[in-house]
Amino acid sequence: VKNNDPMVYHGYSTSQGHLSCRKAIAGNLNKRFKREYSPNDLFLTCGAAASLCITFRALTASPEDEIIVLAPYFPEYKVFIEGQGARMRLVPSRNDMRLNMDGIKEAVNRNTKAILINSPNNPSGVVYTKEEIKALSDYLMEMQEELDKTIYLISDEPYRELVYNDEPPAFIPDYYDNTIICYSWSKSLSLPGERIGYVLVNDKCKEKEVVMAAVGGAARALGYVCAPTLFQLVIERCIDVKPNIEAYRKNRDILYDGLTRMGYKVAKPDGAFYLFIEAPDGDSEEFSKKAKEHDVLVVPGAGFGTDTHIRLSYCVETEKCVKALPVFEKLMKEYK
Amino acid sequence: VKNNDPMVYHGYSTSQGHLSCRKAIAGNLNKRFKREYSPNDLFLTCGAAASLCITFRALTASPEDEIIVLAPYFPEYKVFIEGQGARMRLVPSRNDMRLNMDGIKEAVNRNTKAILINSPNNPSGVVYTKEEIKALSDYLMEMQEELDKTIYLISDEPYRELVYNDEPPAFIPDYYDNTIICYSWSKSLSLPGERIGYVLVNDKCKEKEVVMAAVGGAARALGYVCAPTLFQLVIERCIDVKPNIEAYRKNRDILYDGLTRMGYKVAKPDGAFYLFIEAPDGDSEEFSKKAKEHDVLVVPGAGFGTDTHIRLSYCVETEKCVKALPVFEKLMKEYK
Repeated sequence: VKNNDPMVYHGYSTSQGHLSCRKAIAGNLNKRFKREYSPNDLFLTCGAAASLCITFRALTASPEDEIIVLAPYFPEYKVFIEGQGARMRLVPSRNDMRLNMDGIKEAVNRNTKAILINSPNNPSGVVYTKEEIKALSDYLMEMQEELDKTIYLISDEPYRELVYNDEPPAFIPDYYDNTIICYSWSKSLSLPGERIGYVLVNDKCKEKEVVMAAVGGAARALGYVCAPTLFQLVIERCIDVKPNIEAYRKNRDILYDGLTRMGYKVAKPDGAFYLFIEAPDGDSEEFSKKAKEHDVLVVPGAGFGTDTHIRLSYCVETEKCVKALPVFEKLMKEYK
Repeated sequence: VKNNDPMVYHGYSTSQGHLSCRKAIAGNLNKRFKREYSPNDLFLTCGAAASLCITFRALTASPEDEIIVLAPYFPEYKVFIEGQGARMRLVPSRNDMRLNMDGIKEAVNRNTKAILINSPNNPSGVVYTKEEIKALSDYLMEMQEELDKTIYLISDEPYRELVYNDEPPAFIPDYYDNTIICYSWSKSLSLPGERIGYVLVNDKCKEKEVVMAAVGGAARALGYVCAPTLFQLVIERCIDVKPNIEAYRKNRDILYDGLTRMGYKVAKPDGAFYLFIEAPDGDSEEFSKKAKEHDVLVVPGAGFGTDTHIRLSYCVETEKCVKALPVFEKLMKEYK
């Protein structure tokens, strides 16, 4: 980076982002997922929140438009969707935190613009199986025909590289053409403060040029001039860097094994760095307070749309995870 | 920067920005303008476009709300204002590009939320005098009483440090309490691609806490999680760096002197790096085409709300300015 002209690394890029950076990203995706993306399918953004807001704004034409969100969900989704003038329609979570197809079938209607999925999920850590993604895709294709309209599948994937299964998770565009991916390097390169990510409009998306133009227009209307240019160059040079997930996996195993042994109900987290734990009596506010008294910080689930559960993050030192277990054990005894 | 913990320079900051960075900015403003700002009066943003969108969104409550903009103006204002759900009301420019008080008086009404000024101005380079700012402020105070409502003065100041007068320009909050400043380091530190700036809610602004809370809410709804953190640290360390404006001044003098001698009508640009030149027959589209044939790039004025003029940027090497003069001379002869 030091050898470049300062105009290159501190000057504006095009609003879509430096071509060389988008080339590197497309090349990386094509290699890993055996696709044929071009740099024109990508729009660089100031991080995942920007990617989502830009996508919601690009797809929203009327205040009746709905984006379907599946609980448990990242609470900012509601702010971002409503901030762009659309409505959020919430599908309740299943007890096991798997994809709630019945709930989705009840939610889809004439006003559905898109359905938003987040796998690996924040707050549950659940990674949808290929079968789940296929079932969702098949259903959406059916509904597109029945309603004679396009329904987009927005895949929010900031945790895509943080998966602990041997088999890689489904790449959504392989199952559904009208997919838009919102990505960020905040988690995979651990630089959340730098605000760098992208929107990918799938190359098989219907009228993809129109969608990409809407993405560009939305970014402009929201004041996103371009993604930070120095970090565009960083991404270009670090495109093949893989995060070291062993520390996360170790923490996950310690906590998941320990908690289930104590009798806690927890969906197995195959990705991200969260555990979503059912409060023994279903009162997550009360449980969170008690845990805090023992210096264990957890987030009650109401904000995630599932008030029976608490979220525990294991993006911490392993020692902290080990120390948390006796607290959970003590608390469980209080409930018995 | 190298000695810091990576969590500090790549991690999230608060949405308002690192306290240490805001302290440095407040300290710099207090020293230069003899004010008493606290870090809480500042909200760091991803650049001037973000500052403006966040401010417009924070102030807009209904689709009837109007922001008054003075021609000639930066064309993105319209996109940003309408993107936040408000209306832009345009005040036409005066021939001499000075503050059009008569036009402003015609424009202010019950729906006026704010008036946006941009001094030094893009595209004219005009810097409003203290007398002009005082006249505007006095009128707005009068109208606030008459209409019994708050009218904000939004001062978009990306070119604040690029001024060629000996006397420093007016600091708007000294004249009008309900001022909100939108600032960016893109021009003063020449790093437009990095997206870093701020919103300052003047400490004497009515209900300033409510306004700052609205700014925070607007930033969130637009997907601005925080300003890029590495550059927050850069700003903190470079807060007293002054741009070298001598190259700009030299270019300005060469072009302004040359063009006025040839008979062109140009408002004297005391700041920024633009000249706004009247096309000899008032047809700026045609003039722009002719100039382009001679490899001189100018922007026709229609987009700036003043279609009789063209904008010439002198943020280029001096040699280019010198070479442009014979082209302007040749073109002027064609019109005579």
